[in-house]
Amino acid sequence: MTEAPQTTIVFLLFPGITQLDFTAPAQALCRLPGARLIGAAASLDPIPTDCGFAILPTHDFAAAPQADILCVPGGHGVVEALGDRATIDFIARQAAGATWVTSVCTGAFLLGRAGLLEGRRATTHWAYTHLLPMVGARHEAARVVEDGPVVTSGGVTSGLDFALTLVARMRGDAAAQAIQLAIEYDPAPPFAGGHPDRAPAAVTEGLKARVYDAAAARMAAALKS
Amino acid sequence: MTEAPQTTIVFLLFPGITQLDFTAPAQALCRLPGARLIGAAASLDPIPTDCGFAILPTHDFAAAPQADILCVPGGHGVVEALGDRATIDFIARQAAGATWVTSVCTGAFLLGRAGLLEGRRATTHWAYTHLLPMVGARHEAARVVEDGPVVTSGGVTSGLDFALTLVARMRGDAAAQAIQLAIEYDPAPPFAGGHPDRAPAAVTEGLKARVYDAAAARMAAALKS
Repeated sequence: MTEAPQTTIVFLLFPGITQLDFTAPAQALCRLPGARLIGAAASLDPIPTDCGFAILPTHDFAAAPQADILCVPGGHGVVEALGDRATIDFIARQAAGATWVTSVCTGAFLLGRAGLLEGRRATTHWAYTHLLPMVGARHEAARVVEDGPVVTSGGVTSGLDFALTLVARMRGDAAAQAIQLAIEYDPAPPFAGGHPDRAPAAVTEGLKARVYDAAAARMAAALKS
Repeated sequence: MTEAPQTTIVFLLFPGITQLDFTAPAQALCRLPGARLIGAAASLDPIPTDCGFAILPTHDFAAAPQADILCVPGGHGVVEALGDRATIDFIARQAAGATWVTSVCTGAFLLGRAGLLEGRRATTHWAYTHLLPMVGARHEAARVVEDGPVVTSGGVTSGLDFALTLVARMRGDAAAQAIQLAIEYDPAPPFAGGHPDRAPAAVTEGLKARVYDAAAARMAAALKS
């Protein structure tokens, strides 16, 4: 039996990350034989997540090894990270040497700010897809969008579908199926409404009014500045 | 508009946790209006997860507030945790005052060791369901099993379905639908094989031979001791 190739997977961590954007694909990708998972941040300080607990980075930007897979999660903290040169430089530098350059949710806009979505098909969280042209990307209505080495995915939980799709590309269907079975990813959501195309209109409108209209406006302002 | 009731959600953290057993339901439950999420562990030291990064507890066992929802995740570390009296005592003490007593994946066996599954219908990760009678439970073949205040769920990713189901019970369908839409839980797994009933037999058999036959034997030995 040949040894599995080593694969270095670097996730960007930043304050205000939506933690499942990181932790869901991390769960699938860390079971890739030969995987080494890196959580890279500006410093080794604990990263406060959106859920009230903190995650420890494994490396700071300077010490992080070169990624084979670079993955940029999203979250409300993206708005601030867009203005942080060290973060954007880290993404650009890592992307230049990576085989796969990927994002989950609004992490797409950090890839975009680093110039990595210019002329590409891409996706992001449903409440932000209309902003993709601001970083030169064309929205494709899919949960996972592959455009050459750049793979973007939709909101939060789409990171699972993204990660399994990527494992299948890299190591074949059987490897991805084994991971999918190990994490019992046989979803049975209680409602059909995980996307505005299928959610009750009142639920979508309520959520936009309470959260996403303002959040998308903040993102647009940060992308303009 | 009336203020949302406060809900304290206590997750047990322990070394060798399968991090998504915690992070997936945490992502849904932390968006419950009025939610306060607690990650409780034996000490405040970082908790090494199965994915190569660490999570910081918010409280140690002594300082953790009483849960409204107690949630016990699983992972390879369960085998060791089964023999740790402080952990089992914490579960029993918290469960006595909680409205909901819940588990994801092999966390069910920690509930069981604390005497909480006696005579109940329950589930766990597919590779361990045959061991449920060792803690007095009867396996029910479902992704989320509700038996009074005790809600158990299947392997790893089932924590999402569990959390949204619980939100619907507690606050109604619209509250759960809003969270499901916010985290874009509109799953599109690349394969149909997230459960042995649907996975290719070779994938299931390979995974059992490589991982789960031995892991289930270790769990059985720990449950006997």
